[in-house]
Amino acid sequence: MATLYGIGVGPGDPELLTLKALRIVRAVPVLAYPAPETGDSLARAIVAPHLTGGQTEIAIRIPLEVARFPAQEVYDAAAQDIAAHLKQGSDVAVLCQGDPFFYGSFMYLFGRLARDWKTVVVPGVSSLMACAAALGTPLAARDDALCVLPAPLPEDVLEARLRDCDCAAIIKLGRHFPKVKRVLDRLGLATRARYVEHASMQNQRVRALSEIGDGEVPYFAMLLVHKRDEVWRVD
Amino acid sequence: MATLYGIGVGPGDPELLTLKALRIVRAVPVLAYPAPETGDSLARAIVAPHLTGGQTEIAIRIPLEVARFPAQEVYDAAAQDIAAHLKQGSDVAVLCQGDPFFYGSFMYLFGRLARDWKTVVVPGVSSLMACAAALGTPLAARDDALCVLPAPLPEDVLEARLRDCDCAAIIKLGRHFPKVKRVLDRLGLATRARYVEHASMQNQRVRALSEIGDGEVPYFAMLLVHKRDEVWRVD
Repeated sequence: MATLYGIGVGPGDPELLTLKALRIVRAVPVLAYPAPETGDSLARAIVAPHLTGGQTEIAIRIPLEVARFPAQEVYDAAAQDIAAHLKQGSDVAVLCQGDPFFYGSFMYLFGRLARDWKTVVVPGVSSLMACAAALGTPLAARDDALCVLPAPLPEDVLEARLRDCDCAAIIKLGRHFPKVKRVLDRLGLATRARYVEHASMQNQRVRALSEIGDGEVPYFAMLLVHKRDEVWRVD
Repeated sequence: MATLYGIGVGPGDPELLTLKALRIVRAVPVLAYPAPETGDSLARAIVAPHLTGGQTEIAIRIPLEVARFPAQEVYDAAAQDIAAHLKQGSDVAVLCQGDPFFYGSFMYLFGRLARDWKTVVVPGVSSLMACAAALGTPLAARDDALCVLPAPLPEDVLEARLRDCDCAAIIKLGRHFPKVKRVLDRLGLATRARYVEHASMQNQRVRALSEIGDGEVPYFAMLLVHKRDEVWRVD
């Protein structure tokens, strides 16, 4: 019986691919990956330096206008394509930026295929850890309660969760940046928030919160907040 | 000027090492790693298949009895050892299980050395993602608020944080398991919690909560909790 692989290819730097991901990506006859409606797939670009050609490729093209509310019919069709290869006995590897099970679109294929097909997930380096590395600051330490908060959450939910935790990662910033900034200001946390976009990629950028205009924040931007100075200090 | 590297070597499976970690671990003249007072270092064991010999090695031996409250004098001494090599112009790579900035002991060296020496962190695959892969279930999806909670936190804090989030990872279980189980029972979440120990390692074990005796839970065990069924479903 053929295997469906969900492969975490890491946050963007092709060198942050794991040995396991590399071995499987090279070995399978069929690769699938999310891609914009036109243009190149970021997940594919991460593994491209390692491909030798000769594999069947399935680009799962996600229309931009429904990217916020995923296009379920796109995943229906992709799951059918993938299942057709599995039925023929061909293993299929789905490339996932970051980690497949950490806010990844792989779950939409997993939900459609994992009941019927052997499914193996290869964990990847997450953008969460890549952002901390880019900022040069620990994400969480000792007994910190860490909250991961998608920026599209309602303003009052963001405020309550941020108030209660020791440290937080606010992900998927994009057009929600002004709302997040208001919440941080109200909680007195604006100076403790550190911003990074496209962590580990060639266009990685670390900036002070005060420098950022509201309209120029990409989806793949994150804020890390820690309420203590020198989180490593043991008193 | 020499560079101090904090290298995430991943959760345990030597194949979950990244290409970047592998390149640096092989290239540096000096490797340092945490180790028990007697016996082998887990972080070193992960990279051992890739070492070719001839490197200076610094085992940072952490006395077991103070493992909960880190032995700061041990890190003082280790930082001095490492600084001596850096002063001679030798790059030093500190091996860190999982990711260096995600609850890692690397921060104790980082806090002592990063002000004076160029420090580069290479993010690694975290146990968080390895546990989700081992359990075959998404960690977080869409706009979930995810909480990472160290089990040593007070019972009322664990309860409040678990009540408020959509999903959670409860880490560092060990002897705190009975307390965590009480909290999950009170919140009606016991049947939604999934247990894994030593994720990605040869002794990885996935078990039902009801099967686990109080005294047999290791430190490297984790519970993942999600409050929704079929987290990928879009209604």
